[in-house]
Amino acid sequence: MQTPLEFWFDFASPYSYVGALRVEAACGAAGLPFVWRPFLLGPIFQAQGFATSPFNTQPARKAYMWRDLERLCVKYGLPAFKAPAVFPQRSVLVGRLGCALLGHPRCGDFVRAAFTAEFSAGLDPNEAPVLAGVLGQLGLEAAPWLEKAESPEVKAQLRSFTDEAGKRGVFGAPNLFVGDELVFGQDRLEDAIAWARAQP
Amino acid sequence: MQTPLEFWFDFASPYSYVGALRVEAACGAAGLPFVWRPFLLGPIFQAQGFATSPFNTQPARKAYMWRDLERLCVKYGLPAFKAPAVFPQRSVLVGRLGCALLGHPRCGDFVRAAFTAEFSAGLDPNEAPVLAGVLGQLGLEAAPWLEKAESPEVKAQLRSFTDEAGKRGVFGAPNLFVGDELVFGQDRLEDAIAWARAQP
Repeated sequence: MQTPLEFWFDFASPYSYVGALRVEAACGAAGLPFVWRPFLLGPIFQAQGFATSPFNTQPARKAYMWRDLERLCVKYGLPAFKAPAVFPQRSVLVGRLGCALLGHPRCGDFVRAAFTAEFSAGLDPNEAPVLAGVLGQLGLEAAPWLEKAESPEVKAQLRSFTDEAGKRGVFGAPNLFVGDELVFGQDRLEDAIAWARAQP
Repeated sequence: MQTPLEFWFDFASPYSYVGALRVEAACGAAGLPFVWRPFLLGPIFQAQGFATSPFNTQPARKAYMWRDLERLCVKYGLPAFKAPAVFPQRSVLVGRLGCALLGHPRCGDFVRAAFTAEFSAGLDPNEAPVLAGVLGQLGLEAAPWLEKAESPEVKAQLRSFTDEAGKRGVFGAPNLFVGDELVFGQDRLEDAIAWARAQP
């Protein structure tokens, strides 16, 4: 059985937005098995000595990022990019909800809809009413999914993915893993797919 | 007349190596005017509060970079990548020599040969004997070029490019400018070319 391509992302990460909207379809077109892996960048940044996203301490890099994301959304035909009012947004609840939905047939639709609510509609993806709206839009009942997101098992799952990311060498987001091979950045999705296809 | 694509790079930057070996041929194939713009990352990093390259304070990111460069050199058919013994290498003298050669028909050959000496042969690109070897290999007389590199005009040119880079929003390397539009990273060379071709 072929090694799956794993997409490791944080819902607060703007470049993860662009990657998340592209990755599942690209893997499908390449015939590659695929899994979502939500994690939290906060502890990953803290372990590197950062109190916040490095974009917040590098104004030129942050200004570039917003402009770059506008261009990338045009390039890939995604909804128009809108920088969030607060950056980075909190993403613990939405990350847990992503974990709760893993394996569900609408998981990918949820990931894409939550990201789009955040980075195109300008909503706070960590607010329960926003998430209830996203779930409702997908025909999923909000209350039980939000309850599951706060269960000890799901909370532990998000912590466990975050720990695993750190142990596997993650320093930012998004990341593509094919076995132990890490490919960083949504720009390199095609490289990760080529790598996966070249594996025996 | 079409706006040229400007390649802004530091000879100490490993991703600039990959970009430098690709960019002139890619612009040529696209029919785009092209210019080299050597600058120094040191002052750019200092202005952002970094005492050294951010790769040196993020071990996971640095480990990833070395592996990524191995893969990129394979992908683009470049000489095998070799991480330098010291990172970042000093690059003031080689940067000045790059400035001295701007407009010379062998400028591009010099840039590529100096980068290859550094990142494939493992040489220190800031040592005058190494640079003399690179110049000799291109049929250029070493002594007068090394002398020109240390002239007040050429020193001022490198400082001026570095100042200009900071003013235009540069935060790392390599960078592609098309007019005021900045495209960061060698991975995005094709995007910069597409942008340049779409300009009136």
